[in-house]
Amino acid sequence: MSKPLELHPDRLFPPEPGTRSIARRLHALIADKPIISPHGHTDPRWFAGNKPFGTAAELLLTPDHYLFRMLFSQGIPLSALGLTRADGSAEMADARECWRTFAEHYYLFRGTPSRLWLDWVFVNVFRMAEQLDADSADRYFDAIGEALLQPGFLPRSLFDRLNIEVLATTESPLDDLRHHAAIRDSEWQGRVITAYRPDPTVDPDFEGFRDNVERLGELTGESTDTWPGYLTAHRIRRLFFKGLGATSTDHGHPTARTADLDRGVAERLFQKLLSGRHDNDDAELFRAQMLTEMARMSLDDGLVMQIHPGSFRNHNRLILKAYGRDKGFDIPARTDYVVALKPMLDALGLDERLSIILFTLDESTYSRELAPLAGVYPSLKLGPAWWFHDSPAGMRRFREQTTDTAGFYNTVGFNDDTRAFLSIPARHDVARRVDCGFLAELVAEHRMSEEEAADVAVDLAYTLPRKAYKLDRGPC
Amino acid sequence: MSKPLELHPDRLFPPEPGTRSIARRLHALIADKPIISPHGHTDPRWFAGNKPFGTAAELLLTPDHYLFRMLFSQGIPLSALGLTRADGSAEMADARECWRTFAEHYYLFRGTPSRLWLDWVFVNVFRMAEQLDADSADRYFDAIGEALLQPGFLPRSLFDRLNIEVLATTESPLDDLRHHAAIRDSEWQGRVITAYRPDPTVDPDFEGFRDNVERLGELTGESTDTWPGYLTAHRIRRLFFKGLGATSTDHGHPTARTADLDRGVAERLFQKLLSGRHDNDDAELFRAQMLTEMARMSLDDGLVMQIHPGSFRNHNRLILKAYGRDKGFDIPARTDYVVALKPMLDALGLDERLSIILFTLDESTYSRELAPLAGVYPSLKLGPAWWFHDSPAGMRRFREQTTDTAGFYNTVGFNDDTRAFLSIPARHDVARRVDCGFLAELVAEHRMSEEEAADVAVDLAYTLPRKAYKLDRGPC
Amino acid sequence: MSKPLELHPDRLFPPEPGTRSIARRLHALIADKPIISPHGHTDPRWFAGNKPFGTAAELLLTPDHYLFRMLFSQGIPLSALGLTRADGSAEMADARECWRTFAEHYYLFRGTPSRLWLDWVFVNVFRMAEQLDADSADRYFDAIGEALLQPGFLPRSLFDRLNIEVLATTESPLDDLRHHAAIRDSEWQGRVITAYRPDPTVDPDFEGFRDNVERLGELTGESTDTWPGYLTAHRIRRLFFKGLGATSTDHGHPTARTADLDRGVAERLFQKLLSGRHDNDDAELFRAQMLTEMARMSLDDGLVMQIHPGSFRNHNRLILKAYGRDKGFDIPARTDYVVALKPMLDALGLDERLSIILFTLDESTYSRELAPLAGVYPSLKLGPAWWFHDSPAGMRRFREQTTDTAGFYNTVGFNDDTRAFLSIPARHDVARRVDCGFLAELVAEHRMSEEEAADVAVDLAYTLPRKAYKLDRGPC
Repeated sequence: MSKPLELHPDRLFPPEPGTRSIARRLHALIADKPIISPHGHTDPRWFAGNKPFGTAAELLLTPDHYLFRMLFSQGIPLSALGLTRADGSAEMADARECWRTFAEHYYLFRGTPSRLWLDWVFVNVFRMAEQLDADSADRYFDAIGEALLQPGFLPRSLFDRLNIEVLATTESPLDDLRHHAAIRDSEWQGRVITAYRPDPTVDPDFEGFRDNVERLGELTGESTDTWPGYLTAHRIRRLFFKGLGATSTDHGHPTARTADLDRGVAERLFQKLLSGRHDNDDAELFRAQMLTEMARMSLDDGLVMQIHPGSFRNHNRLILKAYGRDKGFDIPARTDYVVALKPMLDALGLDERLSIILFTLDESTYSRELAPLAGVYPSLKLGPAWWFHDSPAGMRRFREQTTDTAGFYNTVGFNDDTRAFLSIPARHDVARRVDCGFLAELVAEHRMSEEEAADVAVDLAYTLPRKAYKLDRGPC
Repeated sequence: MSKPLELHPDRLFPPEPGTRSIARRLHALIADKPIISPHGHTDPRWFAGNKPFGTAAELLLTPDHYLFRMLFSQGIPLSALGLTRADGSAEMADARECWRTFAEHYYLFRGTPSRLWLDWVFVNVFRMAEQLDADSADRYFDAIGEALLQPGFLPRSLFDRLNIEVLATTESPLDDLRHHAAIRDSEWQGRVITAYRPDPTVDPDFEGFRDNVERLGELTGESTDTWPGYLTAHRIRRLFFKGLGATSTDHGHPTARTADLDRGVAERLFQKLLSGRHDNDDAELFRAQMLTEMARMSLDDGLVMQIHPGSFRNHNRLILKAYGRDKGFDIPARTDYVVALKPMLDALGLDERLSIILFTLDESTYSRELAPLAGVYPSLKLGPAWWFHDSPAGMRRFREQTTDTAGFYNTVGFNDDTRAFLSIPARHDVARRVDCGFLAELVAEHRMSEEEAADVAVDLAYTLPRKAYKLDRGPC
Repeated sequence: MSKPLELHPDRLFPPEPGTRSIARRLHALIADKPIISPHGHTDPRWFAGNKPFGTAAELLLTPDHYLFRMLFSQGIPLSALGLTRADGSAEMADARECWRTFAEHYYLFRGTPSRLWLDWVFVNVFRMAEQLDADSADRYFDAIGEALLQPGFLPRSLFDRLNIEVLATTESPLDDLRHHAAIRDSEWQGRVITAYRPDPTVDPDFEGFRDNVERLGELTGESTDTWPGYLTAHRIRRLFFKGLGATSTDHGHPTARTADLDRGVAERLFQKLLSGRHDNDDAELFRAQMLTEMARMSLDDGLVMQIHPGSFRNHNRLILKAYGRDKGFDIPARTDYVVALKPMLDALGLDERLSIILFTLDESTYSRELAPLAGVYPSLKLGPAWWFHDSPAGMRRFREQTTDTAGFYNTVGFNDDTRAFLSIPARHDVARRVDCGFLAELVAEHRMSEEEAADVAVDLAYTLPRKAYKLDRGPC
C-alpha cells in the first residue's frame, strides 16, 4: 500500500475556524445541486455510442493537456505519454508504461488544480484508497481498467451518476451533429447539447478556411462566395444547431477585436479573403467584423455568445509540425477589451436581449477592463476564471477583482470547459468550495449576512449558469 | 419589517481572532479622528446655500454613478433611475418609483463597496434599522425624505455632525468660485476649499476648448491667444483659487504623458491648437506639455499637483449622445507611467518642493511602476486606490503592492473623490478599517510592533493627508 | 535604551494558529539547511583579501540601493548618505553623520523588506537588543564598528558562520577573475564562484561597447572584428569562467527579445554595430540574437542561462549625470515574454539539456506568460520573485500566480541577488518562512499532506537551487 488517499470534507475552505464553519454550512446547501456544464469540449460520440472508455492512460492522461504539458516540461517526451505524431511515424506507446511514467511523476502536480481534480476522480469515481505513485501505479491501472468495463462506468451511467443536469459540447458549423441526433433519438434522458463554434469558417487563418466556407455553402444550399450568402449560411446553420439543443455560440479568436464595417467594405473584405490575396490585418479585421455579425444573429435567434480571446496558439514550431494543434503549447497573450469591443458595443451593446459572455487569459483585465465593462453594459456578462486560471487561486482572484465593480450578478457561475469528462464534477466541486470560502469571508467580515450568502451560493452554483445560458427547458 | 440592519463593530477586520483584536485596538485610536477630504467633487453650492437636500432618490441614487451603472447593467433604463436625457425629451421619472426600482435590486450590490457605503449612511445618518428591499422601499423613502427637511440634516449641519475638518471640491478655471466666497464670508466655520482643475482650458478635446481659452483671457485680462499670455492667465487664476483655499490642482488626462518642449515648439503647438488645425497627436502632446507647465507653476505657488490619468471616457456613443458625459461609461485603460512621466521628471522630478500625487486605474502599475517611481523621486507621492478600486479589496491590493517599495510614507492617506456627500464618512470608515486590518496583519506576523502600527494608523488617517495636501492652516 | 529589538520565532508565519503550527514544523526542517546563493553581486575581493569591512554606514547603508532610494524619496540628498558624485566634486560625508540620518528615518522602512533584513542582521550578526532610531544611532554605529574589527567578523569568518554553502558573484567577460583565483588558491574552503555576465560586450548601448569587444579579442587571442571570431571569443571566455567555478551566465537586457537570424544577416548586423552606424532597432536586434547565441553555447558548455529583463535603467537624466549608474533609478517596465522568446524557443526550447531561468519585474506576466511557458518548455525554469518583488508579499504573489500552471518543480528556489553580503542569510530566512507559510496553507486547506509539504520545503530551500544551477560538485 502507498500512503492512504482520502478527500477531507473541509478541503479548500479557509483555515480560520469561524470562517470555515460558515463555508461548510454554505457548501452543504449546494453540494448536491445538479451540475450545469454549459461550455466544454467533451465528445458527443461517447454518449451516442455508450461504449466503454479505454484504459486509465487513454481516459485520464493522454487527452489531458494539463497533464502532458507538465510532464513534458520536466523532460518526458510526449511519445512516452501516449501522444501520437502527426505523421503517425512513431510507435504507439504502451498504455501501462505511459501510466507508470505519469504515476512516478505525480509529485509534479503538488499545488496544482490537476492534483485536486484527479484525486477527486480516484476517490469518488474509482474508490481508490491509496495515493498514486510509482508503487501504486499498476494497481491503479488495473483497478481503473477493470472498473471501466463495468456497466456502471459506461458514459451514460457515469453522466447520470455524476448528477449532470446538462452538458454542452462544441462543434464546427461543418459538423453534421449525428451524435447529438443519436442521443436525442435514444431512450436515454441525459441532456447533451451542442454549441456553435464557427472558427473554422470565420477565421481566415484556420486550416482550410476557403474549403470550409465552400463546404458551409454546400451544407446550407447558399452561395457562400457572396457576402450575403455567407451570412445567410451561418444563420441557417445556427438554427440547425439550435434544433439540436444549442443555446450558445463560442468564438476563440486571437484577440477581442470587433468591427462594424459598412456593408460594401465588408463585402470587399470577404471577397479579398476568398481570393487568398489578404494579409494579416485583413484576416484580423474579418474576424473582428464576424464577431459583430454573430452578435447581430444572436439578436435574431437568441443564442448566447461566448468570446474566448487571447491565446497565442501553437507557440512552438517543432511541436506543431510533429504533433499538431492542442498539444499544450497555447500560451496566453496580453489582451485588450476596452478599445477592441467598442465597435460591437457601440452598435449593439445596450440591447439587453443580447447576452455576450467574456472570458480572459489576461488577469490584469479583470479589475481594469472586464468588471467595468460588464458592470455597465447590459449585454455583457463575465465568464468564470478560464483555463490556466481555473484553479482555487485563479477563482479567488476572479472574485476579488471583479466583485467590487461587476457584483455577483454580472457573472455566470462556473464553466468547466474541459475535454476530460470525469474531471467535470471534480472541477465543479472545486469551484463551489472556493466560492463558498469567498462568501464565508464576506460573512465573517460582516459585509453580508449568512442568509444572503446562502442565496448567492445557490445562484452561483445553479441559478446563474442556467439563466445566463438560457438552459431552462421550454415547453417543446 | 424587513430583515434587521445593523453595522457590526468588527466589520472589515480580519476574521482571525488575534489579528482582529489588534485591528480593533488600532481602529479605536483613529475612529474619532476628523475627516480630511482633500480631493472630491461635492457641490459647494450646498454649503453656500445650505438648502435642504431633496428626496432619497435625488440625494442618494440619481447622482451616484456606481449605483446607476450597476442597475443599467442589469437592464434597467437610466430614465427609470431619474437620469434625464441630454435633450430633455423624456419625462422626468417619479422619485419614489426610482427609489422602489433601486430597492428591489439592492441585492445586486452584495459584495460591492456601494453596499458598505449605503448601509453606513442608512444606519448612521438616517437611523434605519431594517434592510433596504422591495418591502421597505417606501418606508425608507418616507423616512429619509422627512429627515432631510429637519434642520439637523441641512448641508452645514451634516458637515459638522459628520466630523469633517476640511473638504475640497474641484472647479474649472472658468468658475467664479462665488459659492466658495459665500462660504468664506458666512459665519459658518466649516472649511470647504476649492481645487484647480484646468482640463477645460488645457485639453484640446474638451468641449469648447477654444472658447474656454478665450474666456480664461477675459477673466484674467491676459491675451490668451499667445503662449506667454496663456500661461500667465493660468498663473493668475491659480492664485485666485489659492485665495479661496485651494491647496491643489487636479488633472484628468487620458494618459500620464508629459513633455518638456522647447519654448518655440510649444508656442507653435499652442497656435496650431488655437487654429483648430491640429490632430490627435498634437492634442496629446499639448496635454503632455501642460502637465510640465503646471508642475513648474506649482514650484512657484506651492499648489500640490494631482494626476488622475487612464480613463477612457464616454465609452458608448449612444449613451454619450442621449445622456451626456459622466453616465457610468468611463472605463479604465492600460496606463504607462515610466516612459510617460520621464520628461517632466527629468525637468523637475528631483525637486522636493514639488509635490505630485499620482493615481491609477491600472492596478498592474502599482508594483511595477508607481511604487518604484514614488519610492525614489522626492516629488512623487501615491494617491490611494481610486474609483473602481476604492473598495476593501482594492485598498488591500494597493497596500500589498506598494508598501514593499514605497513604504507608507510615500502615500497620502485616503481620498474619497466623491460627488456623494453622505458617502464621505462611510468611505473614510472603510479605508480606516482596511488600513487597520492590514497593519494588524503586519503586527500578527511580527513584522512591526503594535506601537509602531498605531503610529502608522494615525499617520494614514490624519497626519499624511494633511501634510501631503498642505492643509495645516497658516496664520492668515 | 531605545525600544527592545527581538526577532519573534514565528515571524512571517500565517496568524491562524493551526496554520502557524504547520508552518513552524515545516520551517524547523529547513531552518538549518546551508544557504545556496546561486546568483548575486557581492564582491569577490572581500573573500580574496579577507580585510575588515568598514563602518556600519559603509557596510550597510551606502551600497544598498533599497535604502538610499527610499531616503532620497523623502528629500534626503544622496550626498548625505555617503554616495559620491561621479566627478568626485562633493566632499565625502562623514560616516557617522550618514548613519544618524539613516537611523532618524528608519521608520520609513516600516512594512518593507529592508526592515526585515536589517533587523535580522542587527540581531543575529551584531547582537543588538534595542531598535534603531535617532537615540540609538550612535550606539549602533559604535557597536557595529567595533565588531567589524574582530576576527570573527572578517569576510571569510562571516561566510562560514552564516552557513553559506556556495555563493556566486557576477563578472564581466573582461574581468581577469584574479580574486576568484586567489580564493581558489587559498587554504580557505569557502565556495565562492563566478558567473558570466556578458552585457558589456553584448549590449551595444553599454558604455564602451566597441572597446569592450576589442578587449575581449585581446583576452582570448581571437579576431573579435569578425562574427565567428567574436563568438569564439565568448566561448573561450565562458570556459575560463567555468574553470573558476561558474555554472551560469546572466543577461540583463532591457527586454526579453530573442532572434534567430541567418548567419549572413547576423554577420552584417555585427559589422554595422562595430562601425557605430547602427540605430536603436539594430542594437535591440543584436541583443536579441546574442541571447540565442548564448543559449547555443550553453548547449555546448552546460552553463545555466539566466535572463533578467525589463528594467528601464537610469530613469533620471540628472542623477545619471551627477552620480552615475545603479543609483536607485532603475524602474521596471512592462515586459513581454511570449512573442519575445519565441525565436529562441523555436530554435532550442525543446532541448531539455538547456536550462534557462527567467526572471521578471512585471508581475502581470507570472500567470499570463511565465508559468504557462515554464509549464511546458523543458528548457525553461522560473527564477524567484526579483528585486522590487523580493519581499513577503512579492514571494506570495509569485507562488500564488505560478504554482497552478508551473508547479513547484519548474521553479528554482530562492536567489538573493544582492550586493549586501550580510543581508544574504536574512533574505533566505524570509524566503524560507514565506514558502513554509504558503505550504502550510495548502496543508491547512487539505490540498497536500504535511509530509509532502515537508518534501517540497526541503526542495525549495536546498535541492532545487543546487539542481537548477548544477551546483553539485563533480569529482574534479
